[in-house]
Amino acid sequence: MIIQLQSEMNQADQQFIVDAVVGQSFTVNEINTQQGKYLVCIGKNDIDMRTIGNLPGVKDIHRVSDPYKLVSSKWKVGKSAIDIGDGIKIGNGDFQVMAGPCSIEGEEQIRSTIKHLKSLGIKIMRGGVYKPRSSPYSFRGLGMEGLKLWHQIAKENDIKIITEVMQVSQIEPMHDYIDIFQVGARNSQNFNLLDELGKVDKPVMLKRGISGTVDELLQSAEYIFSNGNEKIMLCERGIRTFEKAYRNTMDINAIAILKERSHLPVIADPSHGIGIRKYVDKIAMASVVVGADAVIMEVHECPEKAFSDGQQTLDYKQSENLMDKMGRLRAML
Amino acid sequence: MIIQLQSEMNQADQQFIVDAVVGQSFTVNEINTQQGKYLVCIGKNDIDMRTIGNLPGVKDIHRVSDPYKLVSSKWKVGKSAIDIGDGIKIGNGDFQVMAGPCSIEGEEQIRSTIKHLKSLGIKIMRGGVYKPRSSPYSFRGLGMEGLKLWHQIAKENDIKIITEVMQVSQIEPMHDYIDIFQVGARNSQNFNLLDELGKVDKPVMLKRGISGTVDELLQSAEYIFSNGNEKIMLCERGIRTFEKAYRNTMDINAIAILKERSHLPVIADPSHGIGIRKYVDKIAMASVVVGADAVIMEVHECPEKAFSDGQQTLDYKQSENLMDKMGRLRAML
Amino acid sequence: MIIQLQSEMNQADQQFIVDAVVGQSFTVNEINTQQGKYLVCIGKNDIDMRTIGNLPGVKDIHRVSDPYKLVSSKWKVGKSAIDIGDGIKIGNGDFQVMAGPCSIEGEEQIRSTIKHLKSLGIKIMRGGVYKPRSSPYSFRGLGMEGLKLWHQIAKENDIKIITEVMQVSQIEPMHDYIDIFQVGARNSQNFNLLDELGKVDKPVMLKRGISGTVDELLQSAEYIFSNGNEKIMLCERGIRTFEKAYRNTMDINAIAILKERSHLPVIADPSHGIGIRKYVDKIAMASVVVGADAVIMEVHECPEKAFSDGQQTLDYKQSENLMDKMGRLRAML
Amino acid sequence: MIIQLQSEMNQADQQFIVDAVVGQSFTVNEINTQQGKYLVCIGKNDIDMRTIGNLPGVKDIHRVSDPYKLVSSKWKVGKSAIDIGDGIKIGNGDFQVMAGPCSIEGEEQIRSTIKHLKSLGIKIMRGGVYKPRSSPYSFRGLGMEGLKLWHQIAKENDIKIITEVMQVSQIEPMHDYIDIFQVGARNSQNFNLLDELGKVDKPVMLKRGISGTVDELLQSAEYIFSNGNEKIMLCERGIRTFEKAYRNTMDINAIAILKERSHLPVIADPSHGIGIRKYVDKIAMASVVVGADAVIMEVHECPEKAFSDGQQTLDYKQSENLMDKMGRLRAML
Repeated sequence: MIIQLQSEMNQADQQFIVDAVVGQSFTVNEINTQQGKYLVCIGKNDIDMRTIGNLPGVKDIHRVSDPYKLVSSKWKVGKSAIDIGDGIKIGNGDFQVMAGPCSIEGEEQIRSTIKHLKSLGIKIMRGGVYKPRSSPYSFRGLGMEGLKLWHQIAKENDIKIITEVMQVSQIEPMHDYIDIFQVGARNSQNFNLLDELGKVDKPVMLKRGISGTVDELLQSAEYIFSNGNEKIMLCERGIRTFEKAYRNTMDINAIAILKERSHLPVIADPSHGIGIRKYVDKIAMASVVVGADAVIMEVHECPEKAFSDGQQTLDYKQSENLMDKMGRLRAML
Repeated sequence: MIIQLQSEMNQADQQFIVDAVVGQSFTVNEINTQQGKYLVCIGKNDIDMRTIGNLPGVKDIHRVSDPYKLVSSKWKVGKSAIDIGDGIKIGNGDFQVMAGPCSIEGEEQIRSTIKHLKSLGIKIMRGGVYKPRSSPYSFRGLGMEGLKLWHQIAKENDIKIITEVMQVSQIEPMHDYIDIFQVGARNSQNFNLLDELGKVDKPVMLKRGISGTVDELLQSAEYIFSNGNEKIMLCERGIRTFEKAYRNTMDINAIAILKERSHLPVIADPSHGIGIRKYVDKIAMASVVVGADAVIMEVHECPEKAFSDGQQTLDYKQSENLMDKMGRLRAML
Repeated sequence: MIIQLQSEMNQADQQFIVDAVVGQSFTVNEINTQQGKYLVCIGKNDIDMRTIGNLPGVKDIHRVSDPYKLVSSKWKVGKSAIDIGDGIKIGNGDFQVMAGPCSIEGEEQIRSTIKHLKSLGIKIMRGGVYKPRSSPYSFRGLGMEGLKLWHQIAKENDIKIITEVMQVSQIEPMHDYIDIFQVGARNSQNFNLLDELGKVDKPVMLKRGISGTVDELLQSAEYIFSNGNEKIMLCERGIRTFEKAYRNTMDINAIAILKERSHLPVIADPSHGIGIRKYVDKIAMASVVVGADAVIMEVHECPEKAFSDGQQTLDYKQSENLMDKMGRLRAML
Repeated sequence: MIIQLQSEMNQADQQFIVDAVVGQSFTVNEINTQQGKYLVCIGKNDIDMRTIGNLPGVKDIHRVSDPYKLVSSKWKVGKSAIDIGDGIKIGNGDFQVMAGPCSIEGEEQIRSTIKHLKSLGIKIMRGGVYKPRSSPYSFRGLGMEGLKLWHQIAKENDIKIITEVMQVSQIEPMHDYIDIFQVGARNSQNFNLLDELGKVDKPVMLKRGISGTVDELLQSAEYIFSNGNEKIMLCERGIRTFEKAYRNTMDINAIAILKERSHLPVIADPSHGIGIRKYVDKIAMASVVVGADAVIMEVHECPEKAFSDGQQTLDYKQSENLMDKMGRLRAML
């Protein structure tokens, strides 16, 4: 059960409500986000919600049977739009493409990429400066130095930055240089990281785990929300199955279901979702048809020469063609 | 290696070619289909294909490194279209929708369904008369009696029939009453059934196994082709994964890959691909975007009352809406 | 609900019971096996079983909430032992090893194998004469001719035969030459084959599907039982997962659970369960510890030269060592 | 390629070797652990190892084709034993059981558990003070306060402590109060955490990810080793598959393979491996037969009242029986 409180309410009224709910054998979590005040009440009793709903200071009250609460569409029927700044929004009708290389490699690459993205009308650039790699002997990214360089060039060119944060201690140093924190698939249930990202005022794109369920993804999002940050986007990036004809199995079913179960925007990652360059455009198109609010994809001037593995990365011409096709598709939908 | 022979060639010339290839330590499978003559040659030697290619009676010769041969696009680059009769085709640009109930229930249901399908321009009706059921105590279909009734009404109304064949002994009795044999997911590697379907002159729609790989599906198709029947359609119907938020995981990656690896048409089954009615339209649309040559879907006047489980079945209004949306989508592509 | 009837009961009494149950809105399946008479009653009502239990002709009555009925241990608490003939039994304390090659290759191989098996005290020989192969161009077994040869030599040497039956039309020709029908993983839900095997008087070993659930396996066994054949053994042979370090994932959890949910014997196939020769002994030992009633394994005089792929096949020395280890282990348990 | 250096070698000799290898287009990682000095060289050239092997300061040189290097048995053929202190060892023939509750609940529970464990001869107690929970509203453990209390009572009773560390910032505070750091399944690829655990002088038990491959687990172990800590134990705890008859699929295949591919000890977690109390003993026994060097299991005086979910937790009597059975089994092996 979620009780939404009036934002200006006094402490005594709030305590009165908490006591009333606790009196019904519920545990109460008092949640203050940047946008609102909520009581998330967990319990098994059948409670008469009208009694609570009429108390002073209660704005709204909803029963939410899902294991996740504040991210559920059972509480908030309308769709959330995430504000990236400068009028760029994702969700509730606003669609964006985020594109860029797997790894940030250096100034020349950054400038070339930004020039290309801007020519296509893309407003958000992706790229890794901290790379999760299976082997400790692989390239792990340029780190903060690379991020600062990227940030400087991006600001000059009015382009937003999304990049992966891998641990709590990186949040603060990265904060002023990024526009969206990305949580990678391997950290989808790194609960301490999620807790801390709930305390920042920047949007977070949360990727589904490699074998994470839809339910687990939504509960991970609940970690962020319940710590105070409502600006969350969910990302489907393919799951691990028995099939070896491609890298991951893009789960478009999950996109359809997430869009219905949650008010949060859902983003598709077709690059990882299939992992083979020549099919990325088809998977991107399918994701758009199913309802994705944004697409995040890998683009590089010369994928064969990309740091890390570029086999799922589009070149400039391919990304231009895909932008064109997605534009026409969205116009039709 | 596939050697395509001229159809009118004499036996001596053919034997000469066979001997030449066997002399290179290849085993040779002589394949006669309703449409052509082929030698499928399996071996490890590096052979000079020009020597063979110049022999009398050889139309064409191709190296095919895939484990499947005659169904591979490495041998036949152009796409195959399957002729269902009366000008109805699937593949190589021709798109069809096949729709109807899970199970054939009786005359009234058949007439109602056909009337509905015809109003939407749908030319092929699906429905089960032999139903594979996990439990021996469940309804297993009306059998031949139901099929004969259905066939009579369908012919009166110029609508084609696709239905599942479950065992070799059913092929002959069913043959004259159906237009397309469907092989279900549980029989995707029932090799004896595939062998026998290779000897009939009706098209076969072969479903991917519940956890079948793309490779296994293509090799199962190879069974049909190598027995003489080239009229094969592949069907993606969702795979079994760890996720329990839906019934199966629709694998659009597989559609994209099958379309590239094989010249055969690829059909999408969004009903089983997600298994929940309200999402079927989105999954159908995504399948079309990725390149499906046809969509097969469950439709019933009153899904709640359908024999077997109707939770993945569209009602008439929903199927009408979806036909409209697919039409507009295809016009754009 | 299962009502076990007295075997000598008259038809009028039986009809009276059926009517009583039907009167409670149950559907009734009248099952006659080689060993007993049962009414399997499916319905949702809460029925007073004592009323039925006291009717003339009723031997026993049990509520069975599982989707499978006659194979459930909720109905038959004691364990079933399957009689292979000549005092050889499997289940309820009797343990057997079945061993032999992947494929029957010829007289010399048969004689060598039997000599080896007998030296180890093994009483049942496995081997394929009909082989399910992914590719139509692979060796598919020696067929009936091979089986007849094998049968002749086996009878001379007092060794039993288990071999795979792939389709209904093979049952009758094979019947007199085999001691146990094996249903392979790909046919685990070939319901027509299961129906027909329910009508023969030879034991059946039913393999779990490549991605079959425990529930599906038990329901497939129910097909055989409900058609009249109670002599069923279940076989765990590894499932398909994401892991590629081995061929299949041996599911010892399933062995433990099957042993509890069903009264039928459970057999382990460590050869397919891991698919790599050097680990087969460990997996066999683990299966015995978990409670397997038999082990079926691949053995060949020279695995490298075996028809089909011998990479999961033990040589004679390895199988001798394993027999010794299993013997000591079983003595301890 | 791994070059093991003599521990007392001078810097100039080391640099000479590094230069020689770099000259062959290898990248060189200089690794200093608490036990040795290594150069891990990554490259594609075919190098004459004898040239390097004869250089001053080289103790040993090995080609390691695996993606993991220092944890591979290709480099270190003998098995590693991990010293837990006070003569307690795991691996290379030394076997231990670690047991205790899911969560540490308080003094009474700690004292009761320790008394029970000591009566069974168990020397290492498990228990969570930081609990990874899918939902932010679940109990997350007693934290450092609980750990300190536990540590005090454990020291009084000469029992070792293994507990989960969830993030880098917990390592230092926990360090003096624990004997083994446990890395949970969800953190199996939390590379920053692994890096830091490579810098401490306490043993680490690394759990396989929920859908982690054998290869990924070994590469994660490589992170710890290459940062300086050789005291690593690998833990199989069940994987996520399609089967829903139990919580996870215990992968005994993986235990067999890990034991062969790596010199590190392998630990089995039968509690999570099946997730249902009544089967835990069978899975534990199977793990021992396959070669596990230790078993970690959940035990609680009253599992039904355990904090968190106790459905996979043994009670005292059950754990006593299992200890007895494992003892007899190990005596036989």
